Amino acid sequence: MKKLINRPEDFVKESLTGMATAYTDIIKVNFEPTFVYRADAPIQGQVAIISGGGSGHEPMHAGFVGLGMLSAACPGQVFTSPTPDQMLAAAEQVNGGAGILYIVKNYSGDVMNFEMATELARSEGIRTLSIIIDDDVAVKDSLYTQGRRGVGTTVLAEKICGAAAAQNYSLREIANLCRRVNLQGRSVGVALTSCTVPAKGTPTFALGEDQIELGIGIHGEPGIERVSLRSGDEITEILWRTLIEDTDYHRTVREWDERKEEWVDVQLLNKPWEKGDRFLAFVNSMGGTPISELYLVYRKLAELCQMEGLQIVRNIIGPYMTSLEMQGCSITLLKLDEEMLRLWDAPVKTASLRWGV
Amino acid sequence: MKKLINRPEDFVKESLTGMATAYTDIIKVNFEPTFVYRADAPIQGQVAIISGGGSGHEPMHAGFVGLGMLSAACPGQVFTSPTPDQMLAAAEQVNGGAGILYIVKNYSGDVMNFEMATELARSEGIRTLSIIIDDDVAVKDSLYTQGRRGVGTTVLAEKICGAAAAQNYSLREIANLCRRVNLQGRSVGVALTSCTVPAKGTPTFALGEDQIELGIGIHGEPGIERVSLRSGDEITEILWRTLIEDTDYHRTVREWDERKEEWVDVQLLNKPWEKGDRFLAFVNSMGGTPISELYLVYRKLAELCQMEGLQIVRNIIGPYMTSLEMQGCSITLLKLDEEMLRLWDAPVKTASLRWGV
Repeated sequence: MKKLINRPEDFVKESLTGMATAYTDIIKVNFEPTFVYRADAPIQGQVAIISGGGSGHEPMHAGFVGLGMLSAACPGQVFTSPTPDQMLAAAEQVNGGAGILYIVKNYSGDVMNFEMATELARSEGIRTLSIIIDDDVAVKDSLYTQGRRGVGTTVLAEKICGAAAAQNYSLREIANLCRRVNLQGRSVGVALTSCTVPAKGTPTFALGEDQIELGIGIHGEPGIERVSLRSGDEITEILWRTLIEDTDYHRTVREWDERKEEWVDVQLLNKPWEKGDRFLAFVNSMGGTPISELYLVYRKLAELCQMEGLQIVRNIIGPYMTSLEMQGCSITLLKLDEEMLRLWDAPVKTASLRWGV
Repeated sequence: MKKLINRPEDFVKESLTGMATAYTDIIKVNFEPTFVYRADAPIQGQVAIISGGGSGHEPMHAGFVGLGMLSAACPGQVFTSPTPDQMLAAAEQVNGGAGILYIVKNYSGDVMNFEMATELARSEGIRTLSIIIDDDVAVKDSLYTQGRRGVGTTVLAEKICGAAAAQNYSLREIANLCRRVNLQGRSVGVALTSCTVPAKGTPTFALGEDQIELGIGIHGEPGIERVSLRSGDEITEILWRTLIEDTDYHRTVREWDERKEEWVDVQLLNKPWEKGDRFLAFVNSMGGTPISELYLVYRKLAELCQMEGLQIVRNIIGPYMTSLEMQGCSITLLKLDEEMLRLWDAPVKTASLRWGV
C-alpha cells in the first residue's frame, strides 16, 4: 500500500486537520465527535444543510462546506458511515433557528444513522428533515443499499440547496427542491482499477489487466458487469446509454412526515427525459484518473447529448466524489429547471468549489 | 495500459476538444497549430501572457487560460515540447499591442522552442520577452534540463503575472515580476508510482513495491534518490528540509536583452529565507494521489513551517501540475511580498482556478 499517510487509524483525523489548517477562513473542524462546519456558523434565520458519509470520497463532503453550500459535513472513517452523535452535534453547532436539512446518500448505514440523528435533533426541538439521494442507475439493492445508491447528484444537490438556504428558502422549500434534484439526476460510474482502504491495506477488489467494471459503486461494490477494456469513447457511450435508457421512474424513499410525526415511504415519480431538455453534465474522477481523460470523456458525452437533442447548459469536471485513488470516472446528468439553474449559478465559497466570490 | 482514451495519437486533440466544449465562455482552441486562448482575446492595451509545454500535466497550462491568468497556452504532445509555430500563432492571436510574455519551464526543448518563437514574434514586430522558471531544488542538469527544472512555481507565476497584466502592468514590469516570483519560489516532488505515456504504453520508470523517488521530475525523470517507503509525515519533512536548506542562490538563465538585441545570460541572485517571512504554500498532486492525502501533507508542512517561523499566509492544494496518473506530490513554497500577495488575491476565471468572479 503506497499512500502519503501515517498510521491508518489517524488518516481521517490528520487529513481533516490539514483541511482545517488550510481553510481557516471557510471551515472549522470539531473532533469527538467529528464534524466540519462553516467558520461563520450559525447563520441566524437560515436553514442549515448538513451532509456526511464515509471518508475516502474527498473532497465530498467536507470540501463543500462554506458559503452557499453545506453548513456542516460529518465524515466517518474510510468507507464507513458517520454516527448519529456526529450528525446531532453538527446540527446543534450550525442551527440558525430555521431548521436543518440532512442530505443523505442512500447507503444502509448512512440512512439508519441519519434517521436516528433526525429523531434526536427533533427531540431537542431542532426542526429537522432528511432527504435521500438515490441517483445511481447502475444497480438496485447493491451490497450496502436498499434501492439505488446515492452518488454524483449528491454534490449537485448540496450546491443547489445550499444556494437556496443562502437565499432564505424555508426548510420545507429546500427539502422539496432537494427531492426534485434527486429525481432529475442520474449517475453511473466505471472503474479501471480498484482502490485500497488504508486500514485494510490491500485492494478492495481485483480487476484483470484488461478488465473494467461498469456501474461500479463508490466503495468498490459490484456494478453491472465486468467487461474487457475498450476505448474511452466506447466506455462513455455505454455509460451514457445506461443513463438515458433508465426507466426506473417509480422509486420509494423514507422521509419524516411532519404531520404524522413518523417515517413514511414516499413514492417518487420521475418523468422521461425529452429532446430539448436542459442539463448539467458532471464528469467526475474516481480519484486516480487525470483530468485530461475526463475532458476526453466530456467531449464524447457532449457529442452524444447533442445527437440526442439533450442540451448541456452547465458542466462540472474534476475529482469531486472519489473513491480514494481508484481510476475511472462517473457521469451524472441533471435535468435542470429555471430555479435549479439560477441556484447553481449563485455564489459559492468552499475548499473545493468556488465562484462568484 | 488502462486509460480513458482512444488512439494514443488522438489523445491531446480529443482532450483539448473536450475542454473547448466545456468552457466556451472562457477559452477557444485552435488546431494546426495547436493552442488554447482566451475567448475574449485579444485584450487591447494589455500584455498577453503565454505559456506552454508538453501535455500530460493537466490542468497546466490550458486550464489556466482565462481572465487574470494566461492569455494562451501551447500544449505539445504528451511530455513533448510544443513547437515555435504554435507559440508564434498564439502570440499573433492574443497580441493586444502591449507585448507578449512567454513563461517557460526550464526544459531544453521548451527553452529552445520558446527562444525561437520569441525571435519570430519580434521579427513580426510583436514586442516579446520570455522568462524561464527554474524552481525545482531537487536536481541540477537533469535528463532534459540544463540547470534546475521548472515546476510548481510556474503555476504561481502564471497567476501573479496574469493579474498584473489585467491591471495594465507594462511588459517590462511583468517580466521583472515573473523573474522575482521564480527567484522566490522553491519546489520539490516525490513519486510513489510511475505513470504511463499513452504513445509508449508502458510505465516510464519502475519503482519497487516499497520504493519512492524523492525529487522526481514531472516527466518521471530521475530525482535525488530512491528510498524505501515511509510515513507521510516523514516524506513531508524530507521534502520540506530539501526546500528550506536549498542554498542555490546563484543561478543563470538566458533572457532576451532588448537593448543589445540578443540573448544574454542573466545572473539570478536569491536570498536566504528568514524567520517571519510570509509564504504561499502549494501542495500539488502528481495526478493519481487523492486530495485527502494532500491535506495530510499540508498539515505536516504547516506544522514544520510554524516551528521554523515561516508564516504561511496563502495556500493552494490540489492537482494543478500533474504527471498523468502518477501518485505522489510536490511542495512549492513561494516567499511573498506585498505586491505578489495582492496579485495572487486578484480575480481569476479559468477552467481550473477561479475566484472573485
